[in-house]
Amino acid sequence: MQIVSENKCFGGTQGVYSHSSKATGTDMTFGLFLPPGDGPHAVLWFLSGLTCTHENAMAKAGAQAYAARNGLALVFPDTSPRGADIADDDAFDLGQGAGFYLDATQAPWAQNFQMERYILKDLSDLIFDSLPLDISRQSITGHSMGGHGALTLAARAQGRFQSVSAFAPICNPTESAWGQKQFQAYLGSVQAGRDHDASLLAQSGALDLPILTDTGTADQFGELLGTETLKRAVAGRPDAEIRMQDGYDHSYFFVSTFIPDHIAFHARYLSQ
Amino acid sequence: MQIVSENKCFGGTQGVYSHSSKATGTDMTFGLFLPPGDGPHAVLWFLSGLTCTHENAMAKAGAQAYAARNGLALVFPDTSPRGADIADDDAFDLGQGAGFYLDATQAPWAQNFQMERYILKDLSDLIFDSLPLDISRQSITGHSMGGHGALTLAARAQGRFQSVSAFAPICNPTESAWGQKQFQAYLGSVQAGRDHDASLLAQSGALDLPILTDTGTADQFGELLGTETLKRAVAGRPDAEIRMQDGYDHSYFFVSTFIPDHIAFHARYLSQ
Repeated sequence: MQIVSENKCFGGTQGVYSHSSKATGTDMTFGLFLPPGDGPHAVLWFLSGLTCTHENAMAKAGAQAYAARNGLALVFPDTSPRGADIADDDAFDLGQGAGFYLDATQAPWAQNFQMERYILKDLSDLIFDSLPLDISRQSITGHSMGGHGALTLAARAQGRFQSVSAFAPICNPTESAWGQKQFQAYLGSVQAGRDHDASLLAQSGALDLPILTDTGTADQFGELLGTETLKRAVAGRPDAEIRMQDGYDHSYFFVSTFIPDHIAFHARYLSQ
Repeated sequence: MQIVSENKCFGGTQGVYSHSSKATGTDMTFGLFLPPGDGPHAVLWFLSGLTCTHENAMAKAGAQAYAARNGLALVFPDTSPRGADIADDDAFDLGQGAGFYLDATQAPWAQNFQMERYILKDLSDLIFDSLPLDISRQSITGHSMGGHGALTLAARAQGRFQSVSAFAPICNPTESAWGQKQFQAYLGSVQAGRDHDASLLAQSGALDLPILTDTGTADQFGELLGTETLKRAVAGRPDAEIRMQDGYDHSYFFVSTFIPDHIAFHARYLSQ
């Protein structure tokens, strides 16, 4: 694990690190905020959206203030493997910057686009082995494609996360242009994407942990998100809240507005 | 005034606007956060540092949360005129992105680099004419070169601002490589820069309003800032606090950490 940068921030340290990943076969870069104190600290994963790197949420979401106050570490993974030798596509929503948090099975993607394994295995092993973090207290959140990642990884890694939240998540990708195209490319069919669809995972009972999502009524990508389908899938569950926020859009100005609520939500489940 | 973008944020609106400036002879872009409510709102100006545009502080400082809570509008001007036809220099600290908040008198800069007049006259006239803002309640802050701008404009525009603060400001530019080079280029001599040196303005009594500055002890540019000179110049003043913050550097992670303090400081002087 190499240090790219470390900046003191709200009494803790906002670091950027790189490491070699077996899953992706590449060097990967991630951000990690360690709150003040000796730890071991609970961990909140933040998965980012299309076109983002490890940096966007780390610089723009304003999460460190609230994480520091609640004693939470934050992990900001990248959204895909990267490099001149790595498969890519001219579209912003496929290839580099658009890993969709799954393990691709189809050429040319399968060789490096193993983001589920990267996050749940490689990056997880690295940070819990290297840093004063409490592996028994983890929650996960994300924005847009990263909201899809948070919801689906929370369901697929049964028992790993204590709570899940998301900002403007892609909730029903098998029924959206943000999902169908990627499942076909990475997995060979939309059908194969059913195991990576938050609404279907919720319908099947796999998404069985406390859930909070916020989505803006002015989200310019609202029709791609399938929020209503997720809402129906968790209807009646006292531990699931799918909120609509009047007038907010898809930007980090929206994310930063509701970060305090989300961190308070996770902190309830992560307190020792 | 053209709308570039508007995003709902903490119940208010984070806008980006463009307008034509007589002072610079160019179109200029700025950010403006309007808090919730009808106003008229008090205004906190945020001047940015070298290489920044209107966008950096707006996206990374995390100021909107606290501005919304205190009913303050925020204005984020650009740091210079810009354009392919506008004078520039290969160095990052001269020309476009490095206007130093003064009115240049020397060619080729004098034609467009009129940033003091731009901020105090053109942009000020525009926003107070167009938006529900209270011209009698204004304060100013900034980061690095923008901290220099905040301190010097506060002193030079006597009576305009109720309070001034700064993050890692350039405090004594006539004695620094961040200052001497620019005063020579823009004004023809370092001597001419004495009227734009916060420490000298403080020594002369012109910086006669409440002051708060924060600078990190790990600031990688610490030797360029002249913090001790400003500290000596305001020593003994009960309304001036020049603070050093242990372990913090020059980045926006530092700025975001102390934004809550600075907004609380200004809010005391801006409350109706």
